[in-house]
Amino acid sequence: MSHAPQTPLLDRVQSPADLRKLDKSELRQFSDELRAEMIDAVSTSGGHLGSGLGVVELTTAIHYVFNTPEDRLVWDVGHQCYPHKIITGRRDRIRTLRQGGGLSGFTKRAESEYDPFGAAHSSTSISAALGFAMANKLNDKTGRGIAVIGDGSMSAGMAYEAMNNAEQAGNRLVVILNDNDMSIAPPVGGLSAYLARMVSSSEYLGLRSLASKVTRKFSRRVHKALDKAEEFTRGMVTGGTLFEELGFYYVGPIDGHNLDHLIPVLENVRDSDQGPVLIHVVTQKGKGYAPAENSADKYHGVPKFDVVTGEKAKSAAGPPAYQNVFGDTLAKLAETDKRICAITAAMPSGTGVDRFAEAHPERAFDVGIAEQHGVTFAAGLAAQGMRPFAAIYSTFLQRAYDQVVHDVAIQNLPVRFAIDRAGLVGADGCTHAGSFDITYLATLPNFVVMAAADEAELVHMTYTAAEYDEGPIAFRYPRGNGVGVELPEVPQKLEIGKGRIVREGSKVAILSLGARLAEAKKAAETLEAKGLSTTVADLRFAKPLDKDMIEKLMRAHEVVVTIEEGAIGGLGAHVLTFASDEGLTDNGLKVRTMRLPDVFQDHDDPHKQYDEAGLNAPDIVATVLRAFRHNSAGVEEARV
Amino acid sequence: MSHAPQTPLLDRVQSPADLRKLDKSELRQFSDELRAEMIDAVSTSGGHLGSGLGVVELTTAIHYVFNTPEDRLVWDVGHQCYPHKIITGRRDRIRTLRQGGGLSGFTKRAESEYDPFGAAHSSTSISAALGFAMANKLNDKTGRGIAVIGDGSMSAGMAYEAMNNAEQAGNRLVVILNDNDMSIAPPVGGLSAYLARMVSSSEYLGLRSLASKVTRKFSRRVHKALDKAEEFTRGMVTGGTLFEELGFYYVGPIDGHNLDHLIPVLENVRDSDQGPVLIHVVTQKGKGYAPAENSADKYHGVPKFDVVTGEKAKSAAGPPAYQNVFGDTLAKLAETDKRICAITAAMPSGTGVDRFAEAHPERAFDVGIAEQHGVTFAAGLAAQGMRPFAAIYSTFLQRAYDQVVHDVAIQNLPVRFAIDRAGLVGADGCTHAGSFDITYLATLPNFVVMAAADEAELVHMTYTAAEYDEGPIAFRYPRGNGVGVELPEVPQKLEIGKGRIVREGSKVAILSLGARLAEAKKAAETLEAKGLSTTVADLRFAKPLDKDMIEKLMRAHEVVVTIEEGAIGGLGAHVLTFASDEGLTDNGLKVRTMRLPDVFQDHDDPHKQYDEAGLNAPDIVATVLRAFRHNSAGVEEARV
Repeated sequence: MSHAPQTPLLDRVQSPADLRKLDKSELRQFSDELRAEMIDAVSTSGGHLGSGLGVVELTTAIHYVFNTPEDRLVWDVGHQCYPHKIITGRRDRIRTLRQGGGLSGFTKRAESEYDPFGAAHSSTSISAALGFAMANKLNDKTGRGIAVIGDGSMSAGMAYEAMNNAEQAGNRLVVILNDNDMSIAPPVGGLSAYLARMVSSSEYLGLRSLASKVTRKFSRRVHKALDKAEEFTRGMVTGGTLFEELGFYYVGPIDGHNLDHLIPVLENVRDSDQGPVLIHVVTQKGKGYAPAENSADKYHGVPKFDVVTGEKAKSAAGPPAYQNVFGDTLAKLAETDKRICAITAAMPSGTGVDRFAEAHPERAFDVGIAEQHGVTFAAGLAAQGMRPFAAIYSTFLQRAYDQVVHDVAIQNLPVRFAIDRAGLVGADGCTHAGSFDITYLATLPNFVVMAAADEAELVHMTYTAAEYDEGPIAFRYPRGNGVGVELPEVPQKLEIGKGRIVREGSKVAILSLGARLAEAKKAAETLEAKGLSTTVADLRFAKPLDKDMIEKLMRAHEVVVTIEEGAIGGLGAHVLTFASDEGLTDNGLKVRTMRLPDVFQDHDDPHKQYDEAGLNAPDIVATVLRAFRHNSAGVEEARV
Repeated sequence: MSHAPQTPLLDRVQSPADLRKLDKSELRQFSDELRAEMIDAVSTSGGHLGSGLGVVELTTAIHYVFNTPEDRLVWDVGHQCYPHKIITGRRDRIRTLRQGGGLSGFTKRAESEYDPFGAAHSSTSISAALGFAMANKLNDKTGRGIAVIGDGSMSAGMAYEAMNNAEQAGNRLVVILNDNDMSIAPPVGGLSAYLARMVSSSEYLGLRSLASKVTRKFSRRVHKALDKAEEFTRGMVTGGTLFEELGFYYVGPIDGHNLDHLIPVLENVRDSDQGPVLIHVVTQKGKGYAPAENSADKYHGVPKFDVVTGEKAKSAAGPPAYQNVFGDTLAKLAETDKRICAITAAMPSGTGVDRFAEAHPERAFDVGIAEQHGVTFAAGLAAQGMRPFAAIYSTFLQRAYDQVVHDVAIQNLPVRFAIDRAGLVGADGCTHAGSFDITYLATLPNFVVMAAADEAELVHMTYTAAEYDEGPIAFRYPRGNGVGVELPEVPQKLEIGKGRIVREGSKVAILSLGARLAEAKKAAETLEAKGLSTTVADLRFAKPLDKDMIEKLMRAHEVVVTIEEGAIGGLGAHVLTFASDEGLTDNGLKVRTMRLPDVFQDHDDPHKQYDEAGLNAPDIVATVLRAFRHNSAGVEEARV
């Protein structure tokens, strides 16, 4: 049901160049139309709503004042880029957001020249904008790098590293701090408190004082010989010393929904030859749409919804989400085990740590968008005898890889890694896919790496990890809901490095790791019907491998197929390496490995993504049949 | 030649408990003896000298005042831990530093209860100390977490993430900022400038004012209702607002070589119930040893040397270091190619970027200890048409893995990765080994991954990378000197994904990637002498594989061995996966993969390390012979 709003001004804008033809007095109405269009679009597609609502005026002002796309605009994370997409020539496809073949939910270079840098993980924008700025400086080009970054993203060390390097860019770098006191969850830590103090202790600057103040600021800062006293006096007025100490000209805080304030400030910054500048803009997530404003998460991510009532489409009742199975299991175990702690990096509900925190608030740590710190903090807890669970999505654990290697694996500390969003993840696309963790973890000495085939297995693995004090242990599981198996009353402690036979056969063996098990079982039935008696094993462990079982299965079957929801270098590689080292493949055994393909797959329905990846039951069947068709010379006789 | 100094006080100290029995008035002499002992020790063993000299008094004061090991002392990086090792029961082995079987050059949990957390990569200490602090808080224990961190290490985002989370620890966390304006190279960026301003604008506090000020500070901060004006007034006095804004009580700057200042401040901090505290201590790298003080790098890392003259043992003249071959080649290419830029993360000389910077200062970027920023900054440069080379050690590139995946690989941006210290690295041990990069990079779509067999190959690969604009490309090479081949006058552009046959044979094929090639050639000669005609190929590329060549070699030989200076999941895994997918191993071909073992190897001479790893020529020979001894049932007939 469409509620297509009336948008006379927006209809005239196909690109930022059109926007710049509007009179300043029209921008308020333009923004209102942009907001209405975005609400209507997301109501039909689902997606990220609250962040975009918060930056409607800011998006308008930036494109109105700056010379995009020559000025390179980088949206941090990209959750907030829908208004930007509508303005920059993608309005006609905005209702395809996050759907197969449709627009990405994030900025993406392939989509538009107005997306000079894609994002989806947080806190990359200042570094990228600095790259644009310095390249232009080297080439005597005038275009700026402009980063728009939320206060939550500022809690990541990467943003700090970039700010620490910003001074060299001069006025070619503009950082806009979008301070809405909210990322996906409320932000945490010292920086957040600092920003809150700044906002609460300062009046928003009025238009007249603002414009003159900004001008004064730039001319005054030309004199580098400011004495300490003056510097701190100024700091007291603007509240921006932290950023100024790092080399920025700080301006703010500014009401991010007031175009009469935003436009002149941005114009002054644009026309100044001083920099880099950090503009502190205060916005409200969900702004302008009452149901979002009134909701705890500000409609951060929503399904389709009714624009008038705000009522969200209900998803069909189904098995529990993996993250909640994990969170509930851990909370229960922690009732009797006082050593269990849980760490999340700004994803309390996404990881299920919120459920743990409700029961054990003192042992739950939300470290902000700070995976690096989170992992080494967990290592410190482990070194002091605690049983920490670092609950981090597969894709975000990449942020802490060195900490995993250097602080956890080398020291053999028993940090437990609960790795959600393993494998393909659907609408969030390739930036959020958990494709590489098996590979990058199983290559590390000392590590135990498990993958859960279903939600009951996840319960067992959570318990197994809690009880394992010998070193680091990781368990991965998919995004979304379980498969509907019954949850065990009593979790079972799995034997480390031992798999299980799920189905016995004699000609083909499928070695499955993780949630492809259901497809493997389906494939086995089809193969059986074709006269190929098939064994299915759930290996449970990518490391250590169940070498006994694998050797037995290899000696007893003609074709062995491995399957995993991960890229090359993981389970398949470990099985092949073991088998070739031991000479198991020397005498005519056919081994085939099935894994994620060597491409970054676009967003789509997860099942379709696995179809595209060639990891569903028919693909397993085809792989087995092809293996049998290889003749004795090793040449394939016929394609299927 | 030993210059064993007279050390009557030091001789009485076997542990910090003994140290605490000394009178405060004896600590000055004790420190002098400790310094003399350390100089003498390093003169015979070689190692890191400057950092340790800078913290002799600080080490003494910390162990004197705090209750180690219950108070958990974490030295950031660990270069500076030699005095700490002498005090904490390891004096008898201090002359074995960094030698096979001897003490590690870093802190190491296995060595001592006084090393509660190992380190070697920078900026982990605050996170770890916070872990100790919070574990103790949860368990109602009193022990603190104490982090000693250099100003260079503060430039890494991880330290900022930790500071942002510190407030919850209260007085259980103490951070000592060891500000010597010098890490391995002088630090860069806004934070460094900030610290310099603080130190230059403040008087060192006199003893009397210091002690009373610290006391006042704590009692005053109890009143949380300070108004903004007072806060900034205080900031002006102490200069520590940046840290205070993040939630610390800031004390400093303090002369780190003056025990009369250090001891009372540490005592006040110890006895306060306020926290967390950041103590800003100013020290001089190389302090107390004239040759070190007068040297540009403050004797950061030294070979054996003569204590009296400071003269360092000369290393035998030999082939050029790989890093310099890279730096010189890149500098030369950049003369005609204005798009080439070089990025280093605080390692200008270690990476050879110093040589590039000398010729092209405006295109050389030292981003500080900030690999995350460095990689995404490079991605920004690439997106704007530059040809950036991110020159980062293999082990440190782990710090930027998510940026490599998310900002470079997914966007297919042509960032060039010059990966030094690939493979085993000798005296620095497992924390610095470059073991995993083939695995963690070759699993990524879009990536090209090369490894140089010698310094001439490195020249070609540097040029090949410069000319490759289609996407990300990495080339890895070992620590140390080349093998002595002639450097090419004109670099050659290698065909992407094509290897080269180095030697032709008929029964055995050795597929080598990287610098094991020399060992592969030696092994081939031995095998030839045993009647096993052997082909040796230098694959050059782990990705894309030279599939044509590999298939041909597999069809034409009975045994194929891969060898690489990397852990499981790399070249061997890719070759096996390709071969099994294509059915090349279905019919009796024996493939064996040789790689780094599944352990973190201790420091030792690199050749001995490769012996231990089983990757030298005799190991290759043995692997081939064992493969031939497998009988047709796939059972090994006899062990060698």
